[in-house]
Amino acid sequence: MQQIKKNKRIIGVIGTSKCEYNSELYQIAEEVGKEIGKSGNILICGGLGGVMEAAARGAKSVNGLTIGILPGSTPLEANAYIDIPIVTGMGEARNIIIVRSSEVIIAIGGGFGTLSELAFALKLNVPVIGLKTWNLEDKIIIAKDPKHAVETALKIIPAL
Amino acid sequence: MQQIKKNKRIIGVIGTSKCEYNSELYQIAEEVGKEIGKSGNILICGGLGGVMEAAARGAKSVNGLTIGILPGSTPLEANAYIDIPIVTGMGEARNIIIVRSSEVIIAIGGGFGTLSELAFALKLNVPVIGLKTWNLEDKIIIAKDPKHAVETALKIIPAL
Amino acid sequence: MQQIKKNKRIIGVIGTSKCEYNSELYQIAEEVGKEIGKSGNILICGGLGGVMEAAARGAKSVNGLTIGILPGSTPLEANAYIDIPIVTGMGEARNIIIVRSSEVIIAIGGGFGTLSELAFALKLNVPVIGLKTWNLEDKIIIAKDPKHAVETALKIIPAL
Amino acid sequence: MQQIKKNKRIIGVIGTSKCEYNSELYQIAEEVGKEIGKSGNILICGGLGGVMEAAARGAKSVNGLTIGILPGSTPLEANAYIDIPIVTGMGEARNIIIVRSSEVIIAIGGGFGTLSELAFALKLNVPVIGLKTWNLEDKIIIAKDPKHAVETALKIIPAL
Repeated sequence: MQQIKKNKRIIGVIGTSKCEYNSELYQIAEEVGKEIGKSGNILICGGLGGVMEAAARGAKSVNGLTIGILPGSTPLEANAYIDIPIVTGMGEARNIIIVRSSEVIIAIGGGFGTLSELAFALKLNVPVIGLKTWNLEDKIIIAKDPKHAVETALKIIPAL
Repeated sequence: MQQIKKNKRIIGVIGTSKCEYNSELYQIAEEVGKEIGKSGNILICGGLGGVMEAAARGAKSVNGLTIGILPGSTPLEANAYIDIPIVTGMGEARNIIIVRSSEVIIAIGGGFGTLSELAFALKLNVPVIGLKTWNLEDKIIIAKDPKHAVETALKIIPAL
Repeated sequence: MQQIKKNKRIIGVIGTSKCEYNSELYQIAEEVGKEIGKSGNILICGGLGGVMEAAARGAKSVNGLTIGILPGSTPLEANAYIDIPIVTGMGEARNIIIVRSSEVIIAIGGGFGTLSELAFALKLNVPVIGLKTWNLEDKIIIAKDPKHAVETALKIIPAL
Repeated sequence: MQQIKKNKRIIGVIGTSKCEYNSELYQIAEEVGKEIGKSGNILICGGLGGVMEAAARGAKSVNGLTIGILPGSTPLEANAYIDIPIVTGMGEARNIIIVRSSEVIIAIGGGFGTLSELAFALKLNVPVIGLKTWNLEDKIIIAKDPKHAVETALKIIPAL
């Protein structure tokens, strides 16, 4: 694992668990994770498959640090790219922990689970950058590509 | 409290906490609660103000039974019409308990908290009837008025 | 269901899920539930088997009202004597909801799950009456029998 | 932050939040944290004061990695030695997340909050090493000092 920056930031990545390896969404998420890893910041996600796996894989490809907030009761359900599995045993209620723990969120695609996270983020004033995701009353900042998404995310977080 | 039916059903009512007493949404929610109470079934909600208060008030006006799943750590935050305060101390994570405990949900108006509940309901396949609420990919059954909403809710639940 | 008292109180019953039908602990829990039901107050418990089932069964034998705070994600796991299943989907984290929602707790026997509830109760200043349960630094009031336990519980709760 | 080992283990430290800086328990916890940090493994704790602060401080003194599972709704409540604040917003229910996420737990002193964690650990079969903590039916392995506690903890975890 690479040297983590002293003032590392925690960036959430949320999105569908149902995207195939190497699909468009998977590639986008992997690129987002890679940019987060390259920036020396920390990736937090739901720890399972699809977008979560792709983003963690991208981050690990450049030695980033990855955290997975898991719904079940065993760390074994984490995807292969999670460094730190947080085992909640609380099912979908773990979604709100991902949101609360993120300083900014990048949403990629997504079904109703992702929508619940977006709703919590907007309720709790966590800024959200979107890539091909739900459109919610113009409260989500649309990014044009993964690099732009991570750059925007890092610009948006208040300085420590 | 009136006689509760043996085969009582549990009907969730969700919606904005930010609607004034006697506003249109408040009146709709109160009427929904009254219809649930008249049907002899049980109302479950988030236990706080606005739509939650109005619905519980309507149910109590006809001696219905009301349950409030509270976010904070004291039963004192429940509105005056809650018979049974369930004190979670889990903040917004209590939203998912409302959804999981409801056999069917009636959504009235609503902001991002309500949206998180709608998203969980659709994710978990809990049927939702809507009155002036979020429009989500035609997955919510639109009712024309409170009476219609409760009738539809009761028709939709599988028989015990 | 009988008429519930206007100023009904919520009494928690906690204890082992591992006691056989008609064993001594089962009989004690059933008697405790019956006394709670006869008093016109509300029984809250974890909704599963053993002490939880026995207490709910006792309460229902006199038409009491019973609430089960369930760990899993379906109301079907509730025992047959639960009127209102609250479905948390949060596993053992639901233990703390039982504690927070109880005005007083009666503990009967119990393993480590019960111990976690006792610890939360003592941490959160919820009074506990014990029948053949853990002995914790004299913070638990020992009752001599089920009737005495329920009488003590009702005396201990501050008047509304 | 130092190089984290590839096969890092997650070690929980639990204990009272009420111990003064430089008290005996504080010094023990700081030493435990330092040994965990020196071993190249990851420290997880409740993120607040007392034993949690001391352990995290010890780990950071040797560039260890520290995670705090916070009860409140802001990362600002974390002590100064937490690298990664996980913000649950779930109050005491976060205790079970600490337990579930730990491969082994070292308990130092402790009140009723710690007791709830010990109870969950024994219920969920997470091994516990104790230093001046609750004595529970000989299910806790007593260590003679901080170094011995961490050595025992690392021996006890099944190899990856």
